[in-house]
Amino acid sequence: MSVKVAIMGATGAVGTELLEILAERNFPIGELRLLASKRSAGKKLSYAGQNITVEELTHDSFRGIDLVLASAGGKHSKEFAPSAVKAGAVVVDNTSQFRMDPGVPLVIPEINPEDIAKHKGIIANPNCSTIIMALPLFPLHKKYKLKRVVVCTYQAASGAGAVAMDELLEETRANLEGKPFTRSVIPHPYAFNLFPHNSPMTDNGYCEEELKMMKETRKIFHDDSLRIHATTIRVPVLRAHSEAINVEFEGNPSIEDVYALLRNAPGVEVLEDRSANRWPMPLDASGKDPVLAGRVRRDLSQPNTLDFWVVGDQIRKGAALNAVQIAEKLFR
Amino acid sequence: MSVKVAIMGATGAVGTELLEILAERNFPIGELRLLASKRSAGKKLSYAGQNITVEELTHDSFRGIDLVLASAGGKHSKEFAPSAVKAGAVVVDNTSQFRMDPGVPLVIPEINPEDIAKHKGIIANPNCSTIIMALPLFPLHKKYKLKRVVVCTYQAASGAGAVAMDELLEETRANLEGKPFTRSVIPHPYAFNLFPHNSPMTDNGYCEEELKMMKETRKIFHDDSLRIHATTIRVPVLRAHSEAINVEFEGNPSIEDVYALLRNAPGVEVLEDRSANRWPMPLDASGKDPVLAGRVRRDLSQPNTLDFWVVGDQIRKGAALNAVQIAEKLFR
Repeated sequence: MSVKVAIMGATGAVGTELLEILAERNFPIGELRLLASKRSAGKKLSYAGQNITVEELTHDSFRGIDLVLASAGGKHSKEFAPSAVKAGAVVVDNTSQFRMDPGVPLVIPEINPEDIAKHKGIIANPNCSTIIMALPLFPLHKKYKLKRVVVCTYQAASGAGAVAMDELLEETRANLEGKPFTRSVIPHPYAFNLFPHNSPMTDNGYCEEELKMMKETRKIFHDDSLRIHATTIRVPVLRAHSEAINVEFEGNPSIEDVYALLRNAPGVEVLEDRSANRWPMPLDASGKDPVLAGRVRRDLSQPNTLDFWVVGDQIRKGAALNAVQIAEKLFR
Repeated sequence: MSVKVAIMGATGAVGTELLEILAERNFPIGELRLLASKRSAGKKLSYAGQNITVEELTHDSFRGIDLVLASAGGKHSKEFAPSAVKAGAVVVDNTSQFRMDPGVPLVIPEINPEDIAKHKGIIANPNCSTIIMALPLFPLHKKYKLKRVVVCTYQAASGAGAVAMDELLEETRANLEGKPFTRSVIPHPYAFNLFPHNSPMTDNGYCEEELKMMKETRKIFHDDSLRIHATTIRVPVLRAHSEAINVEFEGNPSIEDVYALLRNAPGVEVLEDRSANRWPMPLDASGKDPVLAGRVRRDLSQPNTLDFWVVGDQIRKGAALNAVQIAEKLFR
């Protein structure tokens, strides 16, 4: 089998990672078309040792294409995904555009691979913070049923793209040198600072990032009764999100059982050294596939409640890797 | 009235801030003795325009002294506070050494000033994260009674002292320049990274910093039934701690009422611009007295539950300012 693949947003942080992961995993590529804005057209990107020229994204870009991996922002997905589907391609969309559309499966392959088959041309890739939380939560939910989840995130710059990562580095450099710096991507001072996630606020006081974690997890788990409360904070870290997850269960798992479930959870790796007070950190997860989990504690404030700590690469499992895994299920 | 003051640990981050705050607030100083380790003896520090020579801390340092402000670490407080008390001084201790001692008042002047009068020579200053959480929580507790608090912190380098702040800056500089860096204070990579608080782990899986927030708040509020669950994380920020606080109440306050209580809470200032998606940030609080609060939300996952976000200067209200406020109550 050989698949004709187009990448929308090929020059971005996720696009670049998609190229790496497709090569790494020997995805059976017959043809590879790299699509981006007019500004980036003509650039060359390397894939598996070859240089490929970036083309401008148009409605005609999808002729003959089997698979579109889209990460050029919600507006572009909204505009171009229908053309891709019309041209006969399946779109795996990294943006939030179609995620809550009842006709679009929202998939983490380790959790709900069966939903892939229900697609009508578009499959949505969940939000990065959602994926990193859902992977370790799902096996716990299956065995002990979640009653309520309270999650606080520590999110990296990469969630706002490669430009935000560059801006964090450049602003920090300017700060250390005592030089002025003009931000163009991140709306607040970011060097040695942090702030609640800058996605738009909604009427109920949650920002969109928080609501994504709450709503998308319900859709992926097929459980509308799931009670989740999220607080999403951007911290001056480059590319891995951390999350402190507090879970009240219907059942009462032991700490040992939570560790056993996390150790066996596909896509999750327990990384800790309790005696050395050593737990997962963003630098451990950066560039790695598994979501790293650890620091499981019994919550002394409430029965049937435990708490753990996870860190996952936002660009990899939080975006590009998950999309490629969906593609593998589709075409292998 | 004029007070003879000794500062233990005068050259540290909190010591330096104590000097600034005493001058700023015109504390009625009759004599000022700056005490530090042998290594720092002979250094000169400036106080209100005067240069004062740092003396080596010994058991004889407290002759004639009325007030000792101690922030030279728990070991030194344990060793030297009894000598200070014997010499007739009152010790306001910034370390954790005596905080949970039933004979030692643990005081946030805005909350339990009446406890100051019960001292037998030592008054303990609470943990920085505890103070920053307790100030906004107390008026909410008084009116609506807390049922359960889940708090996640985003803690600055300053909690580990001036040396840790310097190390964060130097490690970040080395990181940006691609140079190797050898850490001597912080046990983990800190540039563009974060990690669960490195205070010692205890048998129940909480680190000491977390247990401090839980136990100290109960003591300050005089309510042993308070259910608090804390997760403490160190982030690459210099000197202000942020905290995401989720509170289940016995009563059911409206969002408006929580804002009103926070606005009226002594030592707390509401800082936000909802329409601009602008909330308190560490840089807003750095070098400032009030704890900044905002982003009050109703938690959609559970009845009678609200959530808010606070940021406070770790060195000021988290340590030095609170100690000076206790001293003012003692001597004014």
